[in-house]
Amino acid sequence: MRVTVWNEFRHEKSNPVVSGIYPDGIHGAIATGLTENGLDQITTATLDEPEQGLSAKRLAETDVLVWWGHRHHDEVSDELAAAVAERVNAGMGLVVLHSGHFSKVFKRLMGTPCTLRWRAEGELERLWVVDPAHPVAAGIPPFFELEREEMYGEPFEVPPPDELVFLSWFKGGEAFRSGCGYRRGRGRIFYFRPGHETFPTYHDATIRKVIANAVRWAAPTLIEAEPFQNRRIMPPLEPI
Amino acid sequence: MRVTVWNEFRHEKSNPVVSGIYPDGIHGAIATGLTENGLDQITTATLDEPEQGLSAKRLAETDVLVWWGHRHHDEVSDELAAAVAERVNAGMGLVVLHSGHFSKVFKRLMGTPCTLRWRAEGELERLWVVDPAHPVAAGIPPFFELEREEMYGEPFEVPPPDELVFLSWFKGGEAFRSGCGYRRGRGRIFYFRPGHETFPTYHDATIRKVIANAVRWAAPTLIEAEPFQNRRIMPPLEPI
Amino acid sequence: MRVTVWNEFRHEKSNPVVSGIYPDGIHGAIATGLTENGLDQITTATLDEPEQGLSAKRLAETDVLVWWGHRHHDEVSDELAAAVAERVNAGMGLVVLHSGHFSKVFKRLMGTPCTLRWRAEGELERLWVVDPAHPVAAGIPPFFELEREEMYGEPFEVPPPDELVFLSWFKGGEAFRSGCGYRRGRGRIFYFRPGHETFPTYHDATIRKVIANAVRWAAPTLIEAEPFQNRRIMPPLEPI
Amino acid sequence: MRVTVWNEFRHEKSNPVVSGIYPDGIHGAIATGLTENGLDQITTATLDEPEQGLSAKRLAETDVLVWWGHRHHDEVSDELAAAVAERVNAGMGLVVLHSGHFSKVFKRLMGTPCTLRWRAEGELERLWVVDPAHPVAAGIPPFFELEREEMYGEPFEVPPPDELVFLSWFKGGEAFRSGCGYRRGRGRIFYFRPGHETFPTYHDATIRKVIANAVRWAAPTLIEAEPFQNRRIMPPLEPI
Repeated sequence: MRVTVWNEFRHEKSNPVVSGIYPDGIHGAIATGLTENGLDQITTATLDEPEQGLSAKRLAETDVLVWWGHRHHDEVSDELAAAVAERVNAGMGLVVLHSGHFSKVFKRLMGTPCTLRWRAEGELERLWVVDPAHPVAAGIPPFFELEREEMYGEPFEVPPPDELVFLSWFKGGEAFRSGCGYRRGRGRIFYFRPGHETFPTYHDATIRKVIANAVRWAAPTLIEAEPFQNRRIMPPLEPI
Repeated sequence: MRVTVWNEFRHEKSNPVVSGIYPDGIHGAIATGLTENGLDQITTATLDEPEQGLSAKRLAETDVLVWWGHRHHDEVSDELAAAVAERVNAGMGLVVLHSGHFSKVFKRLMGTPCTLRWRAEGELERLWVVDPAHPVAAGIPPFFELEREEMYGEPFEVPPPDELVFLSWFKGGEAFRSGCGYRRGRGRIFYFRPGHETFPTYHDATIRKVIANAVRWAAPTLIEAEPFQNRRIMPPLEPI
Repeated sequence: MRVTVWNEFRHEKSNPVVSGIYPDGIHGAIATGLTENGLDQITTATLDEPEQGLSAKRLAETDVLVWWGHRHHDEVSDELAAAVAERVNAGMGLVVLHSGHFSKVFKRLMGTPCTLRWRAEGELERLWVVDPAHPVAAGIPPFFELEREEMYGEPFEVPPPDELVFLSWFKGGEAFRSGCGYRRGRGRIFYFRPGHETFPTYHDATIRKVIANAVRWAAPTLIEAEPFQNRRIMPPLEPI
Repeated sequence: MRVTVWNEFRHEKSNPVVSGIYPDGIHGAIATGLTENGLDQITTATLDEPEQGLSAKRLAETDVLVWWGHRHHDEVSDELAAAVAERVNAGMGLVVLHSGHFSKVFKRLMGTPCTLRWRAEGELERLWVVDPAHPVAAGIPPFFELEREEMYGEPFEVPPPDELVFLSWFKGGEAFRSGCGYRRGRGRIFYFRPGHETFPTYHDATIRKVIANAVRWAAPTLIEAEPFQNRRIMPPLEPI
């Protein structure tokens, strides 16, 4: 399984707090976590690379794409967002992290505003497993905690998840659907909430395990080689 | 719409705290709440009445049944539980409240253990609306609070809800799927979490509105007159 | 409830078969069917009208939009498709008919290719009700037939429906998910398969009843006045 | 993965047509099919064996149970049906075949009547894949045919499937949801329609592949060692 971790990679260049936590970039920390969990074909891609990190060839060679973006969603070209969505429908897995909820790619695949309520004060988040037998929860305890995280609150404006795996409890008073699985076309999409850039979330062992689980769950079972199109079927199978 | 509010009605007889809060019984408070919200054919039924309050005739004349039980689930006869489940599949609505999650009726309709984690210390519960356009959330603010409630925690061992309306946040650290809608046979089932007997939950105006909304949402669109059975279809509609 | 029936209205101008069947346009026949079924604020809109029939004002005054399009999906402006999708997420109901499965509006809301297999030879279609208690099936018999229709076959590349109401059987050998309900944002979307322009489908009494049921089911419960946006929540509800 | 194939095994003893087709029993043919598809810990169990083939020990050593029953559902003890359902909720996979739709086990897990319409005349059934990327459809062509099968028609009185994989088209005019996946407790349940005893369905290579896929899909990710129970959680995680 070939995994590409895409990161906006801007906060790390402009904010010393972020670069202090993630000297190799958020993508670097996520990639390390995947490697630690036994995945071995991990590469990274970032917004400021040529073709925004994801050429057609690169995308065609990706089985599961992990996406982290935040402030610069608008800079991702419409063409790239369309190409990623098309590749997901063709069968590529997609794991959308944290502020990626508002990326062009995720919004296009969901068809809804994908908005929510937020507060980035750094408060305790406790994640509860609601479906312990779900592959994304494999090896995860009944709950786990992040000492300081951004809060995301409901209503989260996404379609009803096909599979709900985690709920978050926030110290400041909110609850949230934090792990949401979707089946779209031949592909699978997993949204996982934690990961604000000013906290060391992607160094957390449990978080890394969840992301690795999500990547494995989203692995393609089938990738369509031909573009989707309406197809005329003649003659009929039975006399009409 | 003919609504029957069924209550175990035992705590009120043995625990002065409960009878102090609910001098007319939990069923009485729920019935009053429904009346306040414009429903006008409300009757009540309790465990110690003849036929456990629900004769075949009574059940046949009920469009939506509201169910509150707790300590004495086992005393409800298997025959009654089967009759209620059959009536729900035939089209009657069912609103299951709080500890009713562990009633014979609900477990039979869900097919799962319906267990959860709990703590009855009396802590703040804050309910968040995740689907503001759902009919059960009509007129309900983005969140509302109960100062003192029992905690229910995940995993809640029910089938994935067909429709999820509320999440609860508990002061003590848990989150929970608090408002779950199901479609079963011709009927609709809504599970709504709050309502521990030692707290005045069913006097709360917002709670009353939610229950009335749930009753309206669960109202039958169609009630099957004949028992369900496998039916042989002959001759075929097309030559075989 | 204010209903707007939108139609491409081109086949009727260029193909005498179609204008023979639908002298008042497909939109005219659909509107008549809604009126017959007791809805009374029905207007129509077509592609060649100013602003493609749907000005911002018009859209803001529509509670449920019915959509029929076919050959000229590409002519619908991206801006209009975006505005309709936004309005659906805000709460407007949307009933998408037949070849509207490939409209910009529907594809944008689904996030998937929405492709299928087809054959327009005019063969028997028999629709089976799989959820007889669903409001869209109210008053509809266990099955009903259209003597001559276009065939649509699986896989239909849409997200798993939140609610499945009808299956189609085609004489030529295919089966299809013909009545699919979705909840998106505050709005509801119903896709209903039949309605090829060269057959008199929208004169059929059962079809008309289904469409009227779908319009009623999709009626808004709540319309968001403000655009969706991420909202910062401060201060927290609880001390952090 | 340890698979147990349970069969009523009565038709084979009383009906020479059935024993002619299935000299090793329906369970024998299914077991052979699983072996052909690379599964290697397959055993069988039948109704007339001690403890109806499924002792507590046997059940505890089964990871996925395949179930075929028909005329003698009522002879399966309530205790065994309860034990199987409990084991499924604990994590065991269950693949229910054909007339098993009306078994005590399946009805108990679904909570609905599980009735349908039928006609056992031996007509063409064509199964269509609606979700080609679903693991149960792995390696299965867009459609496949059984020359002679019993017809099952809608409405099939089950809960809305969590995952729908196949639709059937019948020569005689019906359509049916033929491959339905459910998540219940820690377990997964797959219902697969074909398999009337007087036709050689379980000798068909595609059918065998689907059943093997379903067994793999239903394989446990986690089995609960302790019985499900409500659990008191004290002290709270946060001060209340």
